[in-house]
Amino acid sequence: MTAANRQFRLAARPVGLPRRGDFDLVSQPLPEPGDGQFVVRNVYISLDPAMRGWMNEGKSYVPPVGIGEVMRAYAAGEVIASKHPKFPVGSHAAGVFGVQEYALSDGKGARVVDTALVPLPIYLSALGMTGMTAYFGLFDVGAAQPGDTVVVSAAAGAVGSLVGQIAKIHGCHTVGIAGGADKCRALLDDYGYDAAIDYRNEDVAAGLKQHCPQGINVYFDNVGGAILDAALARLALHARVVICGAISQYNSTTGVKGPANYLALLVMRARMQGFVVMDYASRYAEAAQAMAGWLKQGKLKSREDIVAGFDTFPDTLLKLFRGENTGKLILKV
Amino acid sequence: MTAANRQFRLAARPVGLPRRGDFDLVSQPLPEPGDGQFVVRNVYISLDPAMRGWMNEGKSYVPPVGIGEVMRAYAAGEVIASKHPKFPVGSHAAGVFGVQEYALSDGKGARVVDTALVPLPIYLSALGMTGMTAYFGLFDVGAAQPGDTVVVSAAAGAVGSLVGQIAKIHGCHTVGIAGGADKCRALLDDYGYDAAIDYRNEDVAAGLKQHCPQGINVYFDNVGGAILDAALARLALHARVVICGAISQYNSTTGVKGPANYLALLVMRARMQGFVVMDYASRYAEAAQAMAGWLKQGKLKSREDIVAGFDTFPDTLLKLFRGENTGKLILKV
Repeated sequence: MTAANRQFRLAARPVGLPRRGDFDLVSQPLPEPGDGQFVVRNVYISLDPAMRGWMNEGKSYVPPVGIGEVMRAYAAGEVIASKHPKFPVGSHAAGVFGVQEYALSDGKGARVVDTALVPLPIYLSALGMTGMTAYFGLFDVGAAQPGDTVVVSAAAGAVGSLVGQIAKIHGCHTVGIAGGADKCRALLDDYGYDAAIDYRNEDVAAGLKQHCPQGINVYFDNVGGAILDAALARLALHARVVICGAISQYNSTTGVKGPANYLALLVMRARMQGFVVMDYASRYAEAAQAMAGWLKQGKLKSREDIVAGFDTFPDTLLKLFRGENTGKLILKV
Repeated sequence: MTAANRQFRLAARPVGLPRRGDFDLVSQPLPEPGDGQFVVRNVYISLDPAMRGWMNEGKSYVPPVGIGEVMRAYAAGEVIASKHPKFPVGSHAAGVFGVQEYALSDGKGARVVDTALVPLPIYLSALGMTGMTAYFGLFDVGAAQPGDTVVVSAAAGAVGSLVGQIAKIHGCHTVGIAGGADKCRALLDDYGYDAAIDYRNEDVAAGLKQHCPQGINVYFDNVGGAILDAALARLALHARVVICGAISQYNSTTGVKGPANYLALLVMRARMQGFVVMDYASRYAEAAQAMAGWLKQGKLKSREDIVAGFDTFPDTLLKLFRGENTGKLILKV
C-alpha cells in the first residue's frame, strides 16, 4: 500500500511533440478531504488531443496548465475518503481530476457515475466528454439531417468513431478518413461507416469524389491541414464544417497551416464553425440519455484503447499524435 | 452616330493581374430585338472584384466567362429598342449587360429602374448588387445586432463603405480597415466609422486591439490574407466572420493563403460563413426599400468613383486590385 500520491506536473512548455522531460513525476502526501471535499482514487485517466493545447501559453477556451501544476486531465475512479454528501466513500466519480493517482475535489465539474449501468471507462468515452463532443458537434454545430453525407476525419479516433456511428443511426451517409488499412477496416466493420478513405495510402480528394457524389453536407474535422483542404474542395451547397480539433497542427513548430480552400465557403454558401463541448453542459443529460440508449440497444459501440501503467503517461500520450490508438485512449492507473 | 457595338471579349484566362492582352476589343453590328427582347445602351458599367473570379476556369457559383465571350458585368443604361412590354423604349434598366456598348436582353436578371428617384449610377451601388451584398452579408450572414463591434476590411470600397454605414445606422460600433491616409479619413468623415485602421501604415493587430476592446462580434471580410488572420485573432465569443470576398488573393499566382488563425473559430465558438448575393434575390425589394429610405433621409451616402472611357476598361478594372478606388468603381461608357 502506498500512502503517497504520484503526480505528473508540467515542467516545461513543449516545443513540438511533448517529451518526457516536459513533465516532472513527483510524489506528494495523500490529500485529506476538508468539509465539502472528497478524495478520489483515479482508476482511468482520459488522454485527449486537447491536452496538447492546454500545455501552451496564451489565451484559449480554458487557462493553460501552469508550469509546476498537475497536468489537467479527465479521469474516473473511486471515492476513498469524503466529507461531501453527494460523493460518498465507495461511489465512483468522473471529473477533471488530473494526471495523478489521487485527486482532492470539491465536486465542481465532477459527478457520481453508476458502474452497474456501464463499465467505468465508458464514462470517459461514449458517456463522457468524448461522447458529448461527438453528439453536440454533429447535431448542434453540424446540424446533421437524415440523408446528409457526413465526412469525419480521425474517424477511428475517440470522437470520430462515435460521430460516424451516431450519424449512421441518424440516417446519414457516412464516410470516414483514417490512416492505415487496420483503421479503415475498423471504420467499415466496427463503426458502420459506408465508406473509408485511408489517407496514408489513398488520394483523399479522389476518395471524397468517389464516396460523396453529391458533395459533403457535414464535414466533422478533427485534424486540419491537407485533409481539411480536401474536404473543403468537395463541399455541397450550404455545407457545415465542424471544427472540433486539428491534431495535425497541434505539434507544428512552423505555425498552423490555414485552409487554403476556405473560399469554398463562399462558393458553396457554407459555414465553418468551432465549438467547445463545455458550453453544452446544461444539455449533457440529453446526450448521455441518447448515447446510453444506443449503447443498450447495441447500436453504438464504445471502444477503448486502455494502456496500463501510470508511469507511461508521457509516452502513452504520444500514441494520439502518432495515430496509434483506435477508439478512446485511456491510461489505467 | 455609331452603328456599331463595341465589346470587350475575354481573349485569355489571366495569370495574376488581368492585362489588356487578356481581352479583345471587337466591334459588332448593333443588335436588333426579337419578340420579348430589348436593346439597352449601356451608360454605366459596374466594375467588381468578383469579375476576376469569373475569368478563371473551374466550378464556382456561376460558370466562368468563356474564351471569346463578352466579359460579364452588371451595367445600367437606356432602352433604345424594344419588343418587351416591361422594358419600353426610353426607360432605364439595370442588369447583367456585359462590358459592351449595347446589350440585347430578354429581361432575365434585368429590371427597370427609376432615375427620378435616384441617379442611374446608384442602381449599380447602394441600390444594386453592391448594396444587396452589404445588406444581406451584414444582417443575414453576419447577424449584426445593435451594440456589436463590426469590423470591415476594404472598408472604403464599394461594399465596405455601405456595410460600415448600415452597421452604424443599426447601432453597431464600426471599425474600418483601409489602405492609406485618404481612405482612412473617408472612413471617419464620409462613412461614419467609429475608428479607422490604415493597414499600409499601421499594425492591424494593434489597431484591432485598441479599437475592439471587447473583441470583434462581426468581421465582414472582403480581402482575406493577413488582415483576415489579424481579425480572427481578435474575435469575441460567438463571433461571425462573413466571407464576402478575398481581393488580396484573387490575383495570386502562388495559390490562396489560408487563414492560419482559423482555430480561433474553435476557441471563440465562432463561425465563418460565405454567401452569394444572388441567393437573396427574392428579398432584394426588402433591402432596396431600406437602403432607399436611408439614402432619402441622408443617413446613407452612396459614393461612386466614375471613370469615363469605354476603351479604358482593362486598365480601369485594375484600380480595384491596386486599391485605388474609393466607393463604387464604375465605368462610364
